[in-house]
Amino acid sequence: MKKDFGNFKGILIIGLGLIGGSLALSLKNEGYNGKIYGYDLNKDRVKTALRLKAIDEGFTDLEKIPWENIDLVVLATPVKTFENIAKQIKPFLKPDTIVSDVGSVKGELIQKLFNILKPNVFVGIHPIAGTEKEGIENAVVGLFKDAKVIVTPPEENKEVVRVKKLWQDLGSQVEVMDPYTHDFVFASVSHLPHAVAFALVDALINLSKETGIDLFKYPGGGFRDFTRIAASSPTVWKDIFLENKKDVIHAIDEFIKSLEKLKYYIEEEKQEDLIDLLSETREKRLSLDKSRK
Amino acid sequence: MKKDFGNFKGILIIGLGLIGGSLALSLKNEGYNGKIYGYDLNKDRVKTALRLKAIDEGFTDLEKIPWENIDLVVLATPVKTFENIAKQIKPFLKPDTIVSDVGSVKGELIQKLFNILKPNVFVGIHPIAGTEKEGIENAVVGLFKDAKVIVTPPEENKEVVRVKKLWQDLGSQVEVMDPYTHDFVFASVSHLPHAVAFALVDALINLSKETGIDLFKYPGGGFRDFTRIAASSPTVWKDIFLENKKDVIHAIDEFIKSLEKLKYYIEEEKQEDLIDLLSETREKRLSLDKSRK
Repeated sequence: MKKDFGNFKGILIIGLGLIGGSLALSLKNEGYNGKIYGYDLNKDRVKTALRLKAIDEGFTDLEKIPWENIDLVVLATPVKTFENIAKQIKPFLKPDTIVSDVGSVKGELIQKLFNILKPNVFVGIHPIAGTEKEGIENAVVGLFKDAKVIVTPPEENKEVVRVKKLWQDLGSQVEVMDPYTHDFVFASVSHLPHAVAFALVDALINLSKETGIDLFKYPGGGFRDFTRIAASSPTVWKDIFLENKKDVIHAIDEFIKSLEKLKYYIEEEKQEDLIDLLSETREKRLSLDKSRK
Repeated sequence: MKKDFGNFKGILIIGLGLIGGSLALSLKNEGYNGKIYGYDLNKDRVKTALRLKAIDEGFTDLEKIPWENIDLVVLATPVKTFENIAKQIKPFLKPDTIVSDVGSVKGELIQKLFNILKPNVFVGIHPIAGTEKEGIENAVVGLFKDAKVIVTPPEENKEVVRVKKLWQDLGSQVEVMDPYTHDFVFASVSHLPHAVAFALVDALINLSKETGIDLFKYPGGGFRDFTRIAASSPTVWKDIFLENKKDVIHAIDEFIKSLEKLKYYIEEEKQEDLIDLLSETREKRLSLDKSRK
């Protein structure tokens, strides 16, 4: 099918961080020939986006944006700000302008955004891509190529089809998922690992204090890979944890159960149970590597 | 200083797995010109070691080893087997043959090995290197180059100096540490992260079962890096957890405290506490990257 990126003439990206910046640069790079507008509260980020030629025009004031040219708005700020931004932009939107996002939390939040924005249509998007770095200066061209992109619509309307097309034309693998299922899945495979990484580094800080030995001098044994994601943005992750609270707590509880079980096997020297547990997780992890190929 | 690898004429490596194999290959590659003997219960491993030219002679029977040529024995089997092997080889050792190891647990175990082996001298060694793979077929030439290698002697005797020299000549950064401190440090920076990785994969298996959603289809968000070490050898890790039980349990408990604290902050929506915790761990992790450079 012809590349038309959903046939949007003008796209406004709100929030010129790593993901917003990578989206803008990737659109340009893949041959999108509409106009890309950028908005950010931070003047320097807008300047950087212009300098990198990620956007055609940049704004720090919503009122100055040429709204008549915008037929897609993408929210690329921390998820906690979405409701407020939706309220702020609502009066400016043309009737057929679609609002979308790139946030990591859907569920309830999606429902709220629908209600705030209607009759404008909201299309929830979560690209499973990113790095632990922040800011448009770390934006990556092609970040979404071959990446899974989850779209969480209540129904497959024409607006959903257009937004899906935009991501497909960026080379992403678009997959439809119920917004509540989405939150459970990513609480488990992404939010939980981040919580665990933050807690692990915190535990090592405390163990270092307790003993006076600087444990961070000995980062062998997979520790470095393991805690890479603990360097992720505190603001972004605070918001994700809070916005997806119910599913994140559920995943943390399930993880603590698994860890208590492992601890019990070690304490009671349950050799066979240990081997069974470690073998099962090993096989699961190895099957993951194979499925990638 | 001239490379003499501690001036050992014949080295016997017991256990031809990833670490034993990598040690043999690295010695050859760095120009060690004594003889390397290999012993393993598994005939195929001995054959592979001979085929890879990691060892000069291979054995599956202790009695057939030319013990008069051996002045260093390196235990490279799972730590749980060390005591038994020490008892079995004791009668064969020349009076000045040094016994060493490459195990991840020291502390009590070292004391037991001292007692079994005396008057022969035991020198405890832990190279902070490895991969999640197993077996001599995955051995890596140069695995120990620039790696930290911990030596845990009760005193700096001439045997310790010789074994240190061998590792220094392989390009390792040798560091002396009390055996009990060693066990606490590696319980924290290596054994705990492995326990966490195993428990994380276990939790996802259980969450998948609970909901019927195959969570392993969505391994985004750092999950892949994070659980790489969950593919490590079940036997090796069962032994490490059990041999270093006290310190591992202590580290797990400290980690659960950190995770419960994070969970509490999320449940109670303690925004500032969350930002503080996430910022502190982020800075610590970033300082780690810098210190490597």
